[in-house]
Amino acid sequence: MASPRRVEIVEVGPRDGLQNESRTLTTAQKAEYADRAFAAGVGRVEVTSFVHPQAVPAMADAEDVVAGVPPGAGRIRSALVLNLRGVERARAAGVDDLNCVLVASETFSQRNQRMSVDATVAEIGRMVAAADVPLGVTIACAFGCPFEGAVPEQRVLDLAGRVAGLGIREISLADTIGVGTPDRVSRLVDGLAGVAPGVRRRAHFHNTRNTGYANAVAAVEAGIDALDAATGGIGGCPFAPRATGNVATEDLTYLLHGMGVQTGLDLAALIENAAWLQDRLGGAPLPGQLSRAGDWPGDLAG
Amino acid sequence: MASPRRVEIVEVGPRDGLQNESRTLTTAQKAEYADRAFAAGVGRVEVTSFVHPQAVPAMADAEDVVAGVPPGAGRIRSALVLNLRGVERARAAGVDDLNCVLVASETFSQRNQRMSVDATVAEIGRMVAAADVPLGVTIACAFGCPFEGAVPEQRVLDLAGRVAGLGIREISLADTIGVGTPDRVSRLVDGLAGVAPGVRRRAHFHNTRNTGYANAVAAVEAGIDALDAATGGIGGCPFAPRATGNVATEDLTYLLHGMGVQTGLDLAALIENAAWLQDRLGGAPLPGQLSRAGDWPGDLAG
Repeated sequence: MASPRRVEIVEVGPRDGLQNESRTLTTAQKAEYADRAFAAGVGRVEVTSFVHPQAVPAMADAEDVVAGVPPGAGRIRSALVLNLRGVERARAAGVDDLNCVLVASETFSQRNQRMSVDATVAEIGRMVAAADVPLGVTIACAFGCPFEGAVPEQRVLDLAGRVAGLGIREISLADTIGVGTPDRVSRLVDGLAGVAPGVRRRAHFHNTRNTGYANAVAAVEAGIDALDAATGGIGGCPFAPRATGNVATEDLTYLLHGMGVQTGLDLAALIENAAWLQDRLGGAPLPGQLSRAGDWPGDLAG
Repeated sequence: MASPRRVEIVEVGPRDGLQNESRTLTTAQKAEYADRAFAAGVGRVEVTSFVHPQAVPAMADAEDVVAGVPPGAGRIRSALVLNLRGVERARAAGVDDLNCVLVASETFSQRNQRMSVDATVAEIGRMVAAADVPLGVTIACAFGCPFEGAVPEQRVLDLAGRVAGLGIREISLADTIGVGTPDRVSRLVDGLAGVAPGVRRRAHFHNTRNTGYANAVAAVEAGIDALDAATGGIGGCPFAPRATGNVATEDLTYLLHGMGVQTGLDLAALIENAAWLQDRLGGAPLPGQLSRAGDWPGDLAG
């Protein structure tokens, strides 16, 4: 196994989690969610998405959520955007970081973005030019598409290569429907370094088939810079049938700390946040396990 | 990542799963459970345990379960035993394989075995002498004890070394309470080869803190011969507070096949078995994810 080191965990629950929950939090609760993550040591929170409110009603209060989360040192308030209009809204709202989406399959691109893959690449060029903060690109369906099936690894790497030169800060590989397995993760994370030198590498795993945590370990061993996670393991995608939760922030942190990988996060605070969120979402158990099983007083590195 | 190869998956659900369920299957259902696993390609099923019926009432029908599962080529009917009396009962019942338990912590040993660690080692010597089929040793709490906390890795390897020369066929490392993380798995599986040369290596992971599948991958990469799993991810331990399910047979198989590791198992049949078991246990969703998410028609190796 590769040597332990430090990995950034990006809390994406306020965006990728809440967009798929049947219960909608209030704007104030969404802001509190982000605040709680920052207080637990998270350095970057995807607080909302600036998408059309008819497409994702749960994100209709994007401007108000950002306004409710005070800026500050070590508090990167990131937002998802799908097009130039989203960048303009996010810029006006004053976010600190942007994440856009490039889908690795045409069918899903049309459903999620209402654009072709090529049109999205062109739009990303315009988005970078319009943005006043760093912009990253998430390659969705990097491990498979719910409509087209297998996505060739080379297609993913070719797309990464096409956007790498546009001035983006980061490329994220997203297993949108939770079909990936660790060997493919290793190859793609390795491959990214070749086609996108100097661009930060990030990954986004759903635990739909119980592969999410093994994939996260593979990504860490391959040298990933950042991993997405959602408090309690909430999440899914409104446009991906049967997609389920993200890896849980607290479970991922337990796993990484146990391996001696530093995250800077306070596990006890993360577990409290999961309990808080579970209450706000109606009380049914969330997919994350640590808030039920508890931390364990072993020889875990902090 | 290490090269893919073949790993044996041992179905332990009829023993380690059912012993902790509030609903008890009938003897005929238990036998059908084992038969279904064999029909899906599993070569070895832990069909029951020969323990005191007052200690584990769900296993009181051990003899009848074994009698209900016909012997045959490629159908290894294994059973758990904790002492010489168990070996005698299992021998009379005609099982094909035995698995006994050596606990790596004194407190848990007293609660689970009603014996000290040293007394268990001595008993294992007597059990090997009395057995007419291969006997393996599971080292329980190899990654941590719910009562004593951290268990030093060297203690686990020392215990393995003590029993390795007794004529046993296999040593299994069990994460009884689901606290292990992949680096420790790698070190212990590696270490076993040194202290128990020629003895098969097996591992047993619970997914209590969502580390089970990542641990399984680490064990495979370290060269493990066999991995335990339970249909639907059922399970727990009656003597380990808050222990939850085993890794699910179908989810583990999906993960390994996706990595090109052969198991000989039929994933579609495993998913059907999980649905069958869920119905028999009352219909509430089992922890395994694949039976909900479905197999995925990607480029997965068989």
